[in-house]
Amino acid sequence: MPIRVTVWGENVHDQENDVVKGIYPNGMHNTIADFLRKDPEIICKTAILQQEEHGLTEEILETTDVLTWWGHCAHKQVVDEVVNRVQQRILQGMGLIVLHSGHFSKIFGKMLGTTCSLQWREAGETERVWVCNPGHPITKGIKRYFEVPQSEMYGEPFQVPTPEENIFISWFEGGEVFRSGLTYKRGNGKIFYFSPGHETYPIYHQEDIQMVITNAVKWCRPEGDNWFDKFDGKPTDPVIKIDIKGPRLHGDGQSGLR
Amino acid sequence: MPIRVTVWGENVHDQENDVVKGIYPNGMHNTIADFLRKDPEIICKTAILQQEEHGLTEEILETTDVLTWWGHCAHKQVVDEVVNRVQQRILQGMGLIVLHSGHFSKIFGKMLGTTCSLQWREAGETERVWVCNPGHPITKGIKRYFEVPQSEMYGEPFQVPTPEENIFISWFEGGEVFRSGLTYKRGNGKIFYFSPGHETYPIYHQEDIQMVITNAVKWCRPEGDNWFDKFDGKPTDPVIKIDIKGPRLHGDGQSGLR
Amino acid sequence: MPIRVTVWGENVHDQENDVVKGIYPNGMHNTIADFLRKDPEIICKTAILQQEEHGLTEEILETTDVLTWWGHCAHKQVVDEVVNRVQQRILQGMGLIVLHSGHFSKIFGKMLGTTCSLQWREAGETERVWVCNPGHPITKGIKRYFEVPQSEMYGEPFQVPTPEENIFISWFEGGEVFRSGLTYKRGNGKIFYFSPGHETYPIYHQEDIQMVITNAVKWCRPEGDNWFDKFDGKPTDPVIKIDIKGPRLHGDGQSGLR
Amino acid sequence: MPIRVTVWGENVHDQENDVVKGIYPNGMHNTIADFLRKDPEIICKTAILQQEEHGLTEEILETTDVLTWWGHCAHKQVVDEVVNRVQQRILQGMGLIVLHSGHFSKIFGKMLGTTCSLQWREAGETERVWVCNPGHPITKGIKRYFEVPQSEMYGEPFQVPTPEENIFISWFEGGEVFRSGLTYKRGNGKIFYFSPGHETYPIYHQEDIQMVITNAVKWCRPEGDNWFDKFDGKPTDPVIKIDIKGPRLHGDGQSGLR
Repeated sequence: MPIRVTVWGENVHDQENDVVKGIYPNGMHNTIADFLRKDPEIICKTAILQQEEHGLTEEILETTDVLTWWGHCAHKQVVDEVVNRVQQRILQGMGLIVLHSGHFSKIFGKMLGTTCSLQWREAGETERVWVCNPGHPITKGIKRYFEVPQSEMYGEPFQVPTPEENIFISWFEGGEVFRSGLTYKRGNGKIFYFSPGHETYPIYHQEDIQMVITNAVKWCRPEGDNWFDKFDGKPTDPVIKIDIKGPRLHGDGQSGLR
Repeated sequence: MPIRVTVWGENVHDQENDVVKGIYPNGMHNTIADFLRKDPEIICKTAILQQEEHGLTEEILETTDVLTWWGHCAHKQVVDEVVNRVQQRILQGMGLIVLHSGHFSKIFGKMLGTTCSLQWREAGETERVWVCNPGHPITKGIKRYFEVPQSEMYGEPFQVPTPEENIFISWFEGGEVFRSGLTYKRGNGKIFYFSPGHETYPIYHQEDIQMVITNAVKWCRPEGDNWFDKFDGKPTDPVIKIDIKGPRLHGDGQSGLR
Repeated sequence: MPIRVTVWGENVHDQENDVVKGIYPNGMHNTIADFLRKDPEIICKTAILQQEEHGLTEEILETTDVLTWWGHCAHKQVVDEVVNRVQQRILQGMGLIVLHSGHFSKIFGKMLGTTCSLQWREAGETERVWVCNPGHPITKGIKRYFEVPQSEMYGEPFQVPTPEENIFISWFEGGEVFRSGLTYKRGNGKIFYFSPGHETYPIYHQEDIQMVITNAVKWCRPEGDNWFDKFDGKPTDPVIKIDIKGPRLHGDGQSGLR
Repeated sequence: MPIRVTVWGENVHDQENDVVKGIYPNGMHNTIADFLRKDPEIICKTAILQQEEHGLTEEILETTDVLTWWGHCAHKQVVDEVVNRVQQRILQGMGLIVLHSGHFSKIFGKMLGTTCSLQWREAGETERVWVCNPGHPITKGIKRYFEVPQSEMYGEPFQVPTPEENIFISWFEGGEVFRSGLTYKRGNGKIFYFSPGHETYPIYHQEDIQMVITNAVKWCRPEGDNWFDKFDGKPTDPVIKIDIKGPRLHGDGQSGLR
């Protein structure tokens, strides 16, 4: 079964900034989709902010196994209805890969419950991404570390909950460190956050970066069935027959107020 | 230093339902505040939904060490602005204790990122709450287990992330089980979820229940300084002097778009 | 690629106790291996305590993707050298499934760091195993819960670290509860603990039980490459050329004492 | 109630190496005990490898709230009986602080279940220790980061399980990174690992380092009662009267073989 990936892009800098257009003529989202498609296991579509429902209709999400997310300057423009829909799909089992400045996206904050804030600096300094757990499928093909020659510094403190696993930690020329690869589980959905990816450097053209994101797609694809949360406000019958005791909110035992 | 607790109550059933009024003549929130105040370490105020800003103004939250939350039928009426303010205080260091049907409160869902849904039944059956980690300060004074003679069944699956620690698990007469005591850490704030507490049974008058909630207040009080997340959109100077390399989004290195 | 499973059995009760022999004429380990082999993805061998090196030679472990472990009365007879070898393989990437009384095995305690003790009672009472996270691959094919008609009660407190995920919780007729399905990650190895399986009841003949263990084999098979921990006592060259400063334990920078 | 700390030192380099003797004339353990004693909440004793039972008798451990551990070249000389005794106390509630090369101590590996191996280099390079979660009591008094002017490089991959919280991450001049402050919970005991502390540099004389270790002592002191694991091989009576069904290993329901 191929892995069905939807690559979501904000597509603002990609349209407005000459440097970004020069590096990503078809937009970051298409660059990412293109390298993902090279893998025989993956089929890919893209979606952008400007589309109706930001390209993330019920139908598209239902047929998405893994969603990747890159956003930076327009997080607030993503409508809540779509964010809630994406959350619902993740909890059912869809994987989520959040890239770079997506740490401030509504969906990432929603899944994690913290601000996800950090320190940053745009100086094109070297970033060295170290592997913390060799053998983890996300690190497949990476030796001890790889370098991003020109990167945006992201630095601790990074306000996130303790992850399921810490995959990468980055070293920056200017003296900082950052947890640059983290995994989370929410409901039935796996989440991977990967920080390198500032739009004015050709980071998504870099082979190591492409390898990590491709590995991550395979890692966070749904493994089991969907977890359809069928909460409908109705009570559950007991397994063992019991008598009703004590007063109840409603005579019939249903709290129609939920 | 005394622990400053704010007990938040929805105060709807407490006003509208005769059974609830009979059990909690001054409202659940006052019953809870009253038993907490018995402890010499704790000072307590209450806040209810109907107050301006639901009684949770900036000033009140800034002087609150631990917030307890009970809600059931009016979760949607809690305005987002107040929810966001509460989240901010938790991330700074305020403790949060979520009680019973508060599992569906906006604030609990916001901190955890999942639906927090569960199975339920209102039949006044016996609940037996087992201690999973003796010695944990929240369980102080509880022997192997305690019983809630008439309780509302809450059953698995409970859609929550893996907790920091699983404190209690409950056994129900009708055959179900439920993770009834869970701890979480978000930012600098500790969270405790405790499920027994259906409004038509005198559960908050029960000694074991009162002991657990009092223990929980002491456990989740802030331990260190506040974590003031000062993200202001400005870049950080490097620790080590470095040259700027590569193109930037803005000539001055500031991404005023954050 | 087929999953290569080694089913380890203590094979003491299976030889000495008539009731057990009646239920498992070829030993529990062969019963388990037989149902696992029905799955086209799995190939299976068995190993028992009485064999040389308990059947777990370097070669056998190197060609084992998942090891299952059932032991009860002879944990101490498992020699430390073999336990250490098993630990090493798990850390490299081999999956481990610990069954029932294996909670007191040397290998489980070694991986977890706690006593793994619990409450117990042998009365043939009903156990109801509830699914805590539908959609998790280990629960595939199980509806809300399944029952073990005659089981040994295992009860909280269960002294284990917080798991990566809590898969099952059991309800017992006599009033107890127990975290009966837990996952852990150590190094590159996944671990699943599954409690039902008392030797005097035909539990490993039960379809739901067989389904869970088969699912677990698929879940904990190695996903990535082996993590060969090559610590050899030698220092690492810096990535960036630096001068040596300050005194050192040995002039040549090597602490041959490691 | 004062916090009763036992500072354990290997006391080998402290006796044999002139550089170490020059920096720590009374041994590292006494230097650490001395700065801990400055805090009015703490009373301190020391224990060394060479003492009978390595200075960690039953009585001393029973009256120890927090044990600190520094070892490097003589891990194997610590007898298993004492290691097991220390583990037992930690599971009951005693805190453990493992320092620097103590990552390879028997007790740390026993509590964590992994090799705890890492990369290293003795070149006196600068280490910069970053705070990952401001507000955490262990970081009290530390601003964004502090520096260790001459340190031993410890680098990823660090083979440890995911911690409860990641307190510090270090940046090294030679290009590496390392998770230099980690917390764990095992049974009722809290554990803090803190990596800076190579014996040929005056690291334990450094104010920030002393502050962190003092904070850590306060953080990991027992909070609740001891968790006395009373497993005695005897079955537990049911809470609810049930009939015995099915065959049992022994007629009387006791598995004397545990």
